[in-house]
Amino acid sequence: MGAGRMGQVHGPNAVRTPGLRLKYVVDPRPGAAQALAARCGAAVATLEQALDDPAVGGVLVCSSTDRHLAHALAAVDAGKAVFCEKPIDLDLDKAREAQPRFRDARFVLGFNRRYDPHFLALKRRLDAGEVGALESLQLVNHDPAAPPPGFIPTSGGLFKDFTIHDLDMARWLLGEEPTELFCAASCLVDPEIGRLGDVDTARTVLRTASGRLCVISNTRRSGYGYDQRVEAFGAAGMIAAGNVVLDTVGTLTEDGLGAAPIAPGFPQRFAASYRALLAHFAEVAQGLAPSRTRYADGIAALALAEACGQSARSGRAIRLQGDA
Amino acid sequence: MGAGRMGQVHGPNAVRTPGLRLKYVVDPRPGAAQALAARCGAAVATLEQALDDPAVGGVLVCSSTDRHLAHALAAVDAGKAVFCEKPIDLDLDKAREAQPRFRDARFVLGFNRRYDPHFLALKRRLDAGEVGALESLQLVNHDPAAPPPGFIPTSGGLFKDFTIHDLDMARWLLGEEPTELFCAASCLVDPEIGRLGDVDTARTVLRTASGRLCVISNTRRSGYGYDQRVEAFGAAGMIAAGNVVLDTVGTLTEDGLGAAPIAPGFPQRFAASYRALLAHFAEVAQGLAPSRTRYADGIAALALAEACGQSARSGRAIRLQGDA
Amino acid sequence: MGAGRMGQVHGPNAVRTPGLRLKYVVDPRPGAAQALAARCGAAVATLEQALDDPAVGGVLVCSSTDRHLAHALAAVDAGKAVFCEKPIDLDLDKAREAQPRFRDARFVLGFNRRYDPHFLALKRRLDAGEVGALESLQLVNHDPAAPPPGFIPTSGGLFKDFTIHDLDMARWLLGEEPTELFCAASCLVDPEIGRLGDVDTARTVLRTASGRLCVISNTRRSGYGYDQRVEAFGAAGMIAAGNVVLDTVGTLTEDGLGAAPIAPGFPQRFAASYRALLAHFAEVAQGLAPSRTRYADGIAALALAEACGQSARSGRAIRLQGDA
Amino acid sequence: MGAGRMGQVHGPNAVRTPGLRLKYVVDPRPGAAQALAARCGAAVATLEQALDDPAVGGVLVCSSTDRHLAHALAAVDAGKAVFCEKPIDLDLDKAREAQPRFRDARFVLGFNRRYDPHFLALKRRLDAGEVGALESLQLVNHDPAAPPPGFIPTSGGLFKDFTIHDLDMARWLLGEEPTELFCAASCLVDPEIGRLGDVDTARTVLRTASGRLCVISNTRRSGYGYDQRVEAFGAAGMIAAGNVVLDTVGTLTEDGLGAAPIAPGFPQRFAASYRALLAHFAEVAQGLAPSRTRYADGIAALALAEACGQSARSGRAIRLQGDA
Repeated sequence: MGAGRMGQVHGPNAVRTPGLRLKYVVDPRPGAAQALAARCGAAVATLEQALDDPAVGGVLVCSSTDRHLAHALAAVDAGKAVFCEKPIDLDLDKAREAQPRFRDARFVLGFNRRYDPHFLALKRRLDAGEVGALESLQLVNHDPAAPPPGFIPTSGGLFKDFTIHDLDMARWLLGEEPTELFCAASCLVDPEIGRLGDVDTARTVLRTASGRLCVISNTRRSGYGYDQRVEAFGAAGMIAAGNVVLDTVGTLTEDGLGAAPIAPGFPQRFAASYRALLAHFAEVAQGLAPSRTRYADGIAALALAEACGQSARSGRAIRLQGDA
Repeated sequence: MGAGRMGQVHGPNAVRTPGLRLKYVVDPRPGAAQALAARCGAAVATLEQALDDPAVGGVLVCSSTDRHLAHALAAVDAGKAVFCEKPIDLDLDKAREAQPRFRDARFVLGFNRRYDPHFLALKRRLDAGEVGALESLQLVNHDPAAPPPGFIPTSGGLFKDFTIHDLDMARWLLGEEPTELFCAASCLVDPEIGRLGDVDTARTVLRTASGRLCVISNTRRSGYGYDQRVEAFGAAGMIAAGNVVLDTVGTLTEDGLGAAPIAPGFPQRFAASYRALLAHFAEVAQGLAPSRTRYADGIAALALAEACGQSARSGRAIRLQGDA
Repeated sequence: MGAGRMGQVHGPNAVRTPGLRLKYVVDPRPGAAQALAARCGAAVATLEQALDDPAVGGVLVCSSTDRHLAHALAAVDAGKAVFCEKPIDLDLDKAREAQPRFRDARFVLGFNRRYDPHFLALKRRLDAGEVGALESLQLVNHDPAAPPPGFIPTSGGLFKDFTIHDLDMARWLLGEEPTELFCAASCLVDPEIGRLGDVDTARTVLRTASGRLCVISNTRRSGYGYDQRVEAFGAAGMIAAGNVVLDTVGTLTEDGLGAAPIAPGFPQRFAASYRALLAHFAEVAQGLAPSRTRYADGIAALALAEACGQSARSGRAIRLQGDA
Repeated sequence: MGAGRMGQVHGPNAVRTPGLRLKYVVDPRPGAAQALAARCGAAVATLEQALDDPAVGGVLVCSSTDRHLAHALAAVDAGKAVFCEKPIDLDLDKAREAQPRFRDARFVLGFNRRYDPHFLALKRRLDAGEVGALESLQLVNHDPAAPPPGFIPTSGGLFKDFTIHDLDMARWLLGEEPTELFCAASCLVDPEIGRLGDVDTARTVLRTASGRLCVISNTRRSGYGYDQRVEAFGAAGMIAAGNVVLDTVGTLTEDGLGAAPIAPGFPQRFAASYRALLAHFAEVAQGLAPSRTRYADGIAALALAEACGQSARSGRAIRLQGDA
């Protein structure tokens, strides 16, 4: 479902994932559907055709954000397993309203960072108690370059499109729901983004009931690649996941060290996570494992993203109910 | 003036600084005064004796925080150049009130981080435009281990004693006054600190008029040494100052890399900055250079520290007037 | 040709390489052939069947070392393009004798390190003049753990089986043939290796006509993973290619930094190089590019490997004729 | 004794070393003697005056290489403790002949690398068994820039002036005497050095009786600073001591990482080792500790340096008797 940017990531991965076979590509744009289908050895079909085919066990929802929920609902109502790209929807109320229909679904949400081997290694060390009880967290998520202004209006804005990944990471790593949130945001990258009512640079502070603190650092344009880092501070030390660099080569001259850039964007940085995500979906679709990124996680992160916007606009800290 | 922790840093440095000679050590505790004087080849004197000596050109105020202002005033009134440890005072109003008396003084405030070679190298790269216009800032200042509870009541608390360094760094690097501040703080390290009305873990967000953002990360106990880092994000990249490690040795086994700890505390990490600070004081005292860390910088940082406390207690963002 | 260790690397890669399709798997052991064929969607065939099939354009020679040359000759005589694992043969004279029959062949030798993205990045920087004229070279090639003793007798020994890669790298990077060689070797890892007449730890020094120097460091058992590094020293600096680590995560405690191990073996470390090698073979087989690792490169490296053995046994430096 | 390059290092250090006081500076050049004496609060004297003064307990021999032995002998005959810069002498036979006269001397040789905190940390880890039994060693010692040609004729050449440090390091770390040595050397940096009969680029391989291997990498001009590294390979891993960098600051842009240069020369890199060396001399002079770098160490390293030259000239490996 969807032969755009994310469909082009997940389609070819599905082909290579043991337990998955890509039968159909569905996209309203025939050219895009045809191209991806050819690349993946799949057929082009309509949504109805695909859902009516009893040989189809699951659906990858990679359509545009405003169609995620409708497509996911259609698939779940047809009894299919559903992989759905984030966010579930831009409208928190609509997403909450639909939640009961996913209660028994085999559903995996595309919070791919939870499947990244580096972040998983950090989580494993944290859970193993290498630094004692977690006290605070620093998440850095900087995009390499601002999206085209045309993307902004339908994107949901910085918080629902981008920060939502970090809000999910925060929940995953903190092991506790945030109860307070403050977000300061600016438009420093591209004034056009500001004119469209969005921001491009933000810092968000979360606090949990037990007092754990988390800061999320976001920008739409780093100028130096796709900066993806985590620092977890515990009672006895810190664990950090650093950036992935393009190669291990460095030049030393009298001017100092010159080394390779970091990964330029999500396709390079998160390739392994996308493969692991689909491998997990294959397990979930076959009933072999419970989902690690559930519908409820999508709701919780979306609620936090909404609070970010509210805080950034008002200049006030927001008290949260807890949602998950 | 003061033979305690900071006097024992600055006294011996003064001995080695070209242009300075340490003539007297003043401390109400005769034993402490005597010990430091012996170590530095100086004599013990009372404050009056020292200030009356026309051969004395300047005073290093290293007394306890609650005496800083009184001692600095006595020295400036006696026409001496003054080096004063931070903070100027715990009471912002008192410090503001005294400000006119320092108008013409040769006065250097002990914001030593501005003199650290690593942070100076970062500033130089930033000013050279290596990453374009500065957009945001991440400051990490984590103490290795919590102070004894007895230190808390007279310390001014986390913000005036500790965060004040970062607030000064933020002003120095941002090149613009913060206009908004939010601080979330917790007591996670030692419940005794909470019982004394203080906090030990905090995140502070600053926003300037032009929208620049800065996050300050503090804890009283890192568990892994004295974590002192800066990341400056510009329009075309980032500049980072990392930690200093104890040695360059690492062991590789099948379990991975084991490398040396970072500097355990301020004496190791900031030794060079303290020497540079006194060298600067020697210049200022001799009228050869204007002060790089002025009384007004102390006021501005203190006002921000007070706002941190206000924000942390109320859970609200604070609007700032600008002070410097 | 060959469903053993290297066949299991190259077979699946061939399946994924644009321009290649794996039609047959040939191996005298029916079970091994069947298993790999099934994994790759290929059929099992005899050598004759495969070479007789006019639809077969090329052959991947991944058989045991003592069969490399015979299989490569059969394939080239049948007019097929040939990819051949190193070494061409253990007997330098036999390999030289056969050389004329490969004169017009589309032939790619499996010196995969030349295709590794990290080493290519180093070569690119070197060729771009980042450090001026190359003066000396340090190559580190340490296997993680000693092979089973049963492997030693047919392996060709440390130099022809293992060092041969570095000898090729040296020729590739030095851009000049070595004219002198000295090799000091010991048996420190496993006395059984010594009993079989081989060594497991060696240092080889090469010198070229213009005086460039190269050191090769080898061990059969590093104890810390697959250490693969290059340092190239030029007139104006150095370029180094470091190890690939398993993840970017590190833990800081009062004991220091604990970070991830390096890649444990060639499958992890050189996966990308094996893919690039087959992509290059596809080009060469289709006549789109000249081979970057030719038969003559195999002869030259083999001659150097033989000189290593001679030097190590005699304790003398060896003068070389130049062979390529 | 000697107010040249090394006198200017050790003189001021002596002033600051507890247990030492610098009474006289001796140098045939009155201007040099006067300048250093003034800087150190010492008096200028002749050798005789200094040795005749019963208040003088020890002598620092920092004169030109060809006077080391004569000055050390004069001092030891006068019953003084002796610190002597390396090499003891350029003539191995003369140095050996004088050896009995130092039998009971309190004598410390200036092999400063053994006192470097980084190399000591490596040695400590090695001795603690972090990587099991040592098997091989890689020593890198690259000077930043070629010395003026005028220095070459009296220097003893690359091996006795420069490699001698590494030969001592090798003996110290291997814990066993080398029994075989091969050295390949070239003149690549400055043809003038070649015209004077010296070389500027070399690789030396040592082998001990038990089969341990060591490679020493030397150049007179690195182009990127003072490269000083050690890698020790054991049965269960490796320990490496890396370079010291000037600051911890790095800039990330789309072109990659730009970080600070390594220490440019020995004054920056080995400052701590020179201080530790004099502190050790103070202990030895007062009879509180046995010397850690003895006359015999100087002889052994000198014999190896001579073998380097012999091997480089002849192109042959050299069998060694063992000397220490």
